[in-house]
Amino acid sequence: MGRLLNKIKEPNDIKRISPKLYPILAQEIRDFLIDHVSQTGGHLASNLGAVEITMALHICLHFPEDKVVYDVGHQSYVHKLLTGRKDEFTSLRQKDGLCGFPKRCESDCDVFGTGHSSTSISAALGLAVARDLEQKGETIAAVIGDGALSGGMAYEALNNLSILRREKKNMIIILNDNKMSISENVGGMSRYLNDLRSRRSYSEFKENVENALNNIPGVGKSVARTLKKSKDSIKQLFIPGMLFENMGITYYGLVNGHDIYELIHAINRAKQHEGPILIHAITRKGMGYKYAEKNPEKFHGIGPFDKETGEVLAKKTKKTYTDIFAESLVELARENKKVVAITAAMPSGTGLKAFKKHYPKRFFDVGIAEEHAVTFAAGLAAQGMRPVFAVYSSFLQRGYDQVLHDVCIQKLPVFFCIDRSGLVGADGETHQGIFDISYLSHIPNMVLMAPKNEKEMPAMMKFALEYNGPIAMKYPRGSVYDGLSEYNAPIELGKSEMIYEGQDVVILAVGNIMEECEKAVQLLKSQGYNPGLVNVRFIRPMDEEMLHVLSKKYSLIVTVEENQLIGGYGQMVSAFLHKNVCKNQLLTLGISDYFVGHATVNEQREEAGINADSIVKSIIDRMN
Amino acid sequence: MGRLLNKIKEPNDIKRISPKLYPILAQEIRDFLIDHVSQTGGHLASNLGAVEITMALHICLHFPEDKVVYDVGHQSYVHKLLTGRKDEFTSLRQKDGLCGFPKRCESDCDVFGTGHSSTSISAALGLAVARDLEQKGETIAAVIGDGALSGGMAYEALNNLSILRREKKNMIIILNDNKMSISENVGGMSRYLNDLRSRRSYSEFKENVENALNNIPGVGKSVARTLKKSKDSIKQLFIPGMLFENMGITYYGLVNGHDIYELIHAINRAKQHEGPILIHAITRKGMGYKYAEKNPEKFHGIGPFDKETGEVLAKKTKKTYTDIFAESLVELARENKKVVAITAAMPSGTGLKAFKKHYPKRFFDVGIAEEHAVTFAAGLAAQGMRPVFAVYSSFLQRGYDQVLHDVCIQKLPVFFCIDRSGLVGADGETHQGIFDISYLSHIPNMVLMAPKNEKEMPAMMKFALEYNGPIAMKYPRGSVYDGLSEYNAPIELGKSEMIYEGQDVVILAVGNIMEECEKAVQLLKSQGYNPGLVNVRFIRPMDEEMLHVLSKKYSLIVTVEENQLIGGYGQMVSAFLHKNVCKNQLLTLGISDYFVGHATVNEQREEAGINADSIVKSIIDRMN
Repeated sequence: MGRLLNKIKEPNDIKRISPKLYPILAQEIRDFLIDHVSQTGGHLASNLGAVEITMALHICLHFPEDKVVYDVGHQSYVHKLLTGRKDEFTSLRQKDGLCGFPKRCESDCDVFGTGHSSTSISAALGLAVARDLEQKGETIAAVIGDGALSGGMAYEALNNLSILRREKKNMIIILNDNKMSISENVGGMSRYLNDLRSRRSYSEFKENVENALNNIPGVGKSVARTLKKSKDSIKQLFIPGMLFENMGITYYGLVNGHDIYELIHAINRAKQHEGPILIHAITRKGMGYKYAEKNPEKFHGIGPFDKETGEVLAKKTKKTYTDIFAESLVELARENKKVVAITAAMPSGTGLKAFKKHYPKRFFDVGIAEEHAVTFAAGLAAQGMRPVFAVYSSFLQRGYDQVLHDVCIQKLPVFFCIDRSGLVGADGETHQGIFDISYLSHIPNMVLMAPKNEKEMPAMMKFALEYNGPIAMKYPRGSVYDGLSEYNAPIELGKSEMIYEGQDVVILAVGNIMEECEKAVQLLKSQGYNPGLVNVRFIRPMDEEMLHVLSKKYSLIVTVEENQLIGGYGQMVSAFLHKNVCKNQLLTLGISDYFVGHATVNEQREEAGINADSIVKSIIDRMN
Repeated sequence: MGRLLNKIKEPNDIKRISPKLYPILAQEIRDFLIDHVSQTGGHLASNLGAVEITMALHICLHFPEDKVVYDVGHQSYVHKLLTGRKDEFTSLRQKDGLCGFPKRCESDCDVFGTGHSSTSISAALGLAVARDLEQKGETIAAVIGDGALSGGMAYEALNNLSILRREKKNMIIILNDNKMSISENVGGMSRYLNDLRSRRSYSEFKENVENALNNIPGVGKSVARTLKKSKDSIKQLFIPGMLFENMGITYYGLVNGHDIYELIHAINRAKQHEGPILIHAITRKGMGYKYAEKNPEKFHGIGPFDKETGEVLAKKTKKTYTDIFAESLVELARENKKVVAITAAMPSGTGLKAFKKHYPKRFFDVGIAEEHAVTFAAGLAAQGMRPVFAVYSSFLQRGYDQVLHDVCIQKLPVFFCIDRSGLVGADGETHQGIFDISYLSHIPNMVLMAPKNEKEMPAMMKFALEYNGPIAMKYPRGSVYDGLSEYNAPIELGKSEMIYEGQDVVILAVGNIMEECEKAVQLLKSQGYNPGLVNVRFIRPMDEEMLHVLSKKYSLIVTVEENQLIGGYGQMVSAFLHKNVCKNQLLTLGISDYFVGHATVNEQREEAGINADSIVKSIIDRMN
């Protein structure tokens, strides 16, 4: 098994494979991916769908001289395989192992790192312009999915591509169109692509129409004259990819994205083309693995699974915060008809599928479009609705300006439910939710909460939907913390919750890191200390009353958060103490100014010094 | 003068004006605008261009029940005039006076505040969906310029508009196409609009082609059969606005945007339309005032001027930071051929026009597209270029995710030149540059500098272009500070500059606020104090060495910045002191968690407590 794949040890080795064996190589690659991802977990469906596209690029281009940017990047496994990283797949997405996304530091064939959607055309344009300024001649390509094309950034880049025309230099965009982003694709662009898909290929169509026109006597005179009045109408008649052509980008399609020979032909032609060209390739997410084809969402990002049955191995024992969010929102929306829910192309990931099922008319999937999502929510709120935008922490970064400018300046009651907040594990640097406290807490009018456990979450949501202003709740990926369930003080704006009274030292825990803090308290107690413990609940507004009390009772205050220290909760406490001329010592624990790479959440916590053991050690060090 | 305009005291009063007098009213409005803006300053050209569009909306719609969102918002003066705010124009853009942008708190006819570009369609869609959920029937419109249409957010919203089709409810987009945003418009969308402009109107064209086809025998059979193979081809043949139609938005154009009757006809027809419709109106920026027509960029945002001559009244005595930036960059780029410059549609505002003139091939105006601009710069940097992105502080908010994800994770040497950083005066809340320290300083790998005066700026720029990583320099709107020019310590990474040694208290000044701090030092000295003064220079990385020294020498450390306190420089100093268990007192001065409304910069500083007098008062209060 893997006889051909084993021959590929370095970039460009694929060129030594005989063309007639390409389909066999494709099969070997699929077998390899299914085999390895079933053991390590990772993104499967998108990679299975991109096998032939990636092979064709490696057959037609030369690496690392030529350059490909993979949008979103989780479909870059085949690229990694074909550039000499096969043996590292056993360590995929593990600490110090192969990254699940392209990384410049991993290989000179990874020219530009990706993770968030819709960046590839911008980056590739930058590469292309640099090439032209340096008067070099390499080929530059971006591979982008139809979902990513709904992101505004991709449009901004398409809009800017016309600058390449003046240099008449190439840039190839491969539209990997699988009719879905992570879930089913939505919106006008999707409609348009669907329309294109229903047509035959450009060249064939063009010939038919031209023949038909030529065969009608008199057409040359009257119709053509009329057509000529509008110089591009005839082009509009012929070209299905008019939307792209209108923007100055040559459209080449449709191409069967699983026919390696057709793809090679298309890419070789595109390489000769002067100016930007878009190849529209139709693919199938999960191609070649029946379970993934049938259920591409499940196999989008997946943990280890049984490759024979397609069943995930790790039995889910506890609910996730996403589950609790999803259930609670359905409940709360039953009472309150003003509640509407918004997702940016993540109905499954955010748990909003349940809401959609119950309230289809109050559910909105806006596509991969976080900027629009936030302002759309603001518009709804301006009319008295109670919009809930469920979004991953790292993706809300895209909506930072809109949160500030459209929601908070106007003090509109939008409820941001920030999932995957904190450390996220294997997805690594681009997907960590370790910036949200820093990018939200300096915005006036914003309220920011974090529940300590599963029981607190629904109570916070109820509070939020009654609060008349911008409000956000952050909660992490993965299983809920179900401890401390006997602590249920009612939620009040800006009020923390005292868990344990103690002496000398008190720990302020932000959200889910409570689990580690509670463990730390028990460890400290076993060593003769008697720390207090506070559930912060409201990162902003801060509970100044509580802080005054604490500053009088405890000589050392410790804050713990799964966020950057800079701009984090601890710094706000620090500022409070200085403002009020308090003499307490303060120890702030969190991420100390670095990007957190892929590993398990536990490993990431250990590295950051915010697991129970590290918290204990830091406190004892400071107290002695 | 203003006989008709004087009759308009409340919303909808315009409906009582006889239609035949509309052109006279338009003239009165223009006279009023020229008269008032020549005295107060403000946005003139865009408002002169939007007179008829706004009148037509007020004639066809009923306020406040019907709703209009004005994209960018600085063209909303006519809307304010027609909704009873005429008498307040003497206070335009002044403290506690009329805001230069729509504001929900100012009038119930201002349904949604704007300021940054490309938000209007998203907001209007939110309003429309809320209306449909509540089963109401009002008309909702967005007025958006062709420049704003190059912003990705507008595309995300267009893409999402198709959800209105299922309810068959209206939403009107008026494309106010003046062929420029602030400067000349660029890119593919601009090309496309240009193409549309060159055509005759849709209906006329459609008729001609239909007639021609009908008159040819045999067409019904062969051509039509071929055309039918692609169900929408015939539509493509007929409709110039195919790009919009492709996305499910009905296109209605072209309309003369200065023909009030044509506009009224179009809007009335659009009101009856089921689903989203776009009216393409051609206007002229500065229409009706010869100086503004001739030089719309100058009259985009302008100070008081002589309306007879079009000359600005206030004589410019000092250079601005923008001037120094512009000159220095041209110099530095002469030596270093790798330097390229990027603007998001602001070649004049940012001063990059000079660079463009010298190095046209190394200059890139990407349109109103900050997200793309940042990642495009990252792509250039990945290939060894030294991209400089000159951008206003409040607009870089749009690129926050890209700065983090594409530039800083990859540690790419992009140089962000952040203009209009700090308080900006009359533009008010949406345009303040008082968040950049907070949204940049928590991003790992970022270097953030601020020059104290005009002499330091070129030195910092030279340093930045030699630094191999992400780096930003923030500088304010307006005239340079030319004091302390004898202090010229060489720029070193992360090193502050000692200005005055003193005792007991030391002031750490961030950037241009040095001017007030230096004054404060002199005032304090006159009262018998002897404060030290430090030029912070590097907000990040912080000068920890200097802080250690200061913490030993001075009992009170004072930080002053034109930024939010939360997430600001002062908080980083606070965290440093706690981390190092320093007992010093700390006083942090800056914006204390509110949005800063329109006023003069001096008034805004006074309100924030960061002018010289307030600084002195705060220090003396704390010391006693």
